Amino acid sequence: MSEIRLGIIGLGNMGTGHVQYLIDNEVQGARIAAVCDRGSERLKWAKENIGNNVELFDDLDRFFAFDGLDGVLIATPHYSHTELAIRAFERGLHVLCEKPAGVYTKQVRLMNEAAAKSGKVFSLMYNQRTNPLYQKLRDLIASGELGEIRRTNWIITDWYRSQSYYDSGGWRATWAGEGGGVLINQDPHQLDLWQWTTGLKPKRLRAFCYFGKYRDIEVEDDVTAFVEYENGATGVFVTTTGEAPGTNRFEICGDRGKIVIEDGRLHFWRLRVPEPEFNRTFKGSFGQPECWKCEIPIAGVESGHKGITQNWVNAILHGEPLLAPGEEGINGLMLSNAMLLSTWTDGWVNFPIDEQLFYDHLQRKIGRNDQIAAQ
Amino acid sequence: MSEIRLGIIGLGNMGTGHVQYLIDNEVQGARIAAVCDRGSERLKWAKENIGNNVELFDDLDRFFAFDGLDGVLIATPHYSHTELAIRAFERGLHVLCEKPAGVYTKQVRLMNEAAAKSGKVFSLMYNQRTNPLYQKLRDLIASGELGEIRRTNWIITDWYRSQSYYDSGGWRATWAGEGGGVLINQDPHQLDLWQWTTGLKPKRLRAFCYFGKYRDIEVEDDVTAFVEYENGATGVFVTTTGEAPGTNRFEICGDRGKIVIEDGRLHFWRLRVPEPEFNRTFKGSFGQPECWKCEIPIAGVESGHKGITQNWVNAILHGEPLLAPGEEGINGLMLSNAMLLSTWTDGWVNFPIDEQLFYDHLQRKIGRNDQIAAQ
Repeated sequence: MSEIRLGIIGLGNMGTGHVQYLIDNEVQGARIAAVCDRGSERLKWAKENIGNNVELFDDLDRFFAFDGLDGVLIATPHYSHTELAIRAFERGLHVLCEKPAGVYTKQVRLMNEAAAKSGKVFSLMYNQRTNPLYQKLRDLIASGELGEIRRTNWIITDWYRSQSYYDSGGWRATWAGEGGGVLINQDPHQLDLWQWTTGLKPKRLRAFCYFGKYRDIEVEDDVTAFVEYENGATGVFVTTTGEAPGTNRFEICGDRGKIVIEDGRLHFWRLRVPEPEFNRTFKGSFGQPECWKCEIPIAGVESGHKGITQNWVNAILHGEPLLAPGEEGINGLMLSNAMLLSTWTDGWVNFPIDEQLFYDHLQRKIGRNDQIAAQ
Repeated sequence: MSEIRLGIIGLGNMGTGHVQYLIDNEVQGARIAAVCDRGSERLKWAKENIGNNVELFDDLDRFFAFDGLDGVLIATPHYSHTELAIRAFERGLHVLCEKPAGVYTKQVRLMNEAAAKSGKVFSLMYNQRTNPLYQKLRDLIASGELGEIRRTNWIITDWYRSQSYYDSGGWRATWAGEGGGVLINQDPHQLDLWQWTTGLKPKRLRAFCYFGKYRDIEVEDDVTAFVEYENGATGVFVTTTGEAPGTNRFEICGDRGKIVIEDGRLHFWRLRVPEPEFNRTFKGSFGQPECWKCEIPIAGVESGHKGITQNWVNAILHGEPLLAPGEEGINGLMLSNAMLLSTWTDGWVNFPIDEQLFYDHLQRKIGRNDQIAAQ
């Protein structure tokens, strides 16, 4: 195969964004062969912009019956990701799925099982994994430069959303329509990077979510979470859509120093000797390890969505390792589910979470919403 | 009265520091008339440094029987603060007490009652209240410039202490000797400033303390706390003595913007219109209030310990308002007690805390320490 024949499901904000860089030939080795959307205006837009060589479908059965595809890019509402991905895998298609992988881990586990069974290439649109800052952070941690991690702290409160944003779609910020608020909609990138960059495994978590605190919505718009990791480290994650100007500051402390990513820059305070070594040998009353503020070169540019798509295409065509393997989508989602579950049960949540318990709670929340039927 | 005749109880690190600026005449209107310490070497030092006009006592009964005093400065170990302050008030003496006010709120409530009954001037050595940065923060909040507070976040992890520090005194970092760890020893200033600058009243708190996590000690050396305030705002407080280089960053978000104090500087991001007003009038999908980064002049210098002492003296002599009224010492201490209690009970702690429950837990902790008898 020299070129992937690509089907795109969903032509909303994200789907049309993907179409745009693909028709601009910014991804090598892929061409759009078909699109599927229930909206006739959107299909008309696709025909005008992609050209005559694209098949247009307003029906999923016919889309999946079309035999001119090698892979699909899924850009539909959250709840449908799993069903569509599983259907694609069963058809023998490669899958690139928008975040989040799904709304609840039970769902995503099935998706991962279908991916494994199919042997096809499965990637998730974690485009912030292409950001050189987070790649460098991951490198510094994985290579041991920061030592054993002791604490993480992410304040990610610059996701400001007005009431008019929420009012722009009846499905927005509802349990039935989106399955959650800031955690499932705005934070999937940070929830992914939080564990992808550090490699830390959560052991248990306690979180405090507030629902409709700043806006007239039924889902969470303000969250503080505390996590204990398997290695004994702890972490804090604070997020809201209600603050302006907000903060995006990620601090990670290890026994060789401290890294802070803020305002698009990475700062590394490096201890001359590891803290435990200093502590073993220092005999005075007050004193601390010598610390160097280090300038770390950051190479490369953030290739974003098209970078992830190119990587997925390269993985299919040339066996290139995936930057965002689809199976890893469950990790960030489990953090998100755990935060809600901890709030609903007003207690600790152990990892891996009780996926059925979360599912049952979510169903009860959906049941309370009488305006929009569950998907 | 034109000059306060001052008695100093305790000539350890803090007590000798106070003596030093007093004999250097850096405080107007006070002279040291007596000192009390059980150590003969320390009394010898006092005699040599303060001069012949000072009475030396190695016994509290005789110290309190001495009738040449107007006020006392208490700089003894934590547990004894309350007893000594009450004794002084009952003798009709003004009191300036080192922080913390005491180890448990039950104790400090008695101290406050004795102060009220005596009508004498009672101040606490919250010397960081003299820092112009925190005074400005308090001013900006009290005057409404930041609007209604929504969130606070203090990462105060630059209290690094080595094992050798803890080993330098057998009483250090024990329940019997000090009554706690980083919360009672290093953090009283931040726990005071956290509520003094914001004016926020805690409603309930959930905290996660770790005991002897980084050092061979029995008390807490790593803490993360989450608080809900009466106005609906939330807050996070993270502290440890085990990290280097550590962080001291205090972020406060209100509906008119955000203030961060870090690295000795105050940063104010000010919204052109309050967020709720923007939210009411904005009709687009994505957008947020216009934000101005403002340079705020910070006037004055931090007068520190001698500033607090001078203020206390001025309050006695001239009726100057106290910067750190003693009765407010219970506020920071209650936060500290609540953090331990929440950990011990693995649950929420409501304010005001159940002071007897905390006391009972503390006694059990002291009982486990067989090396040092409870004071």
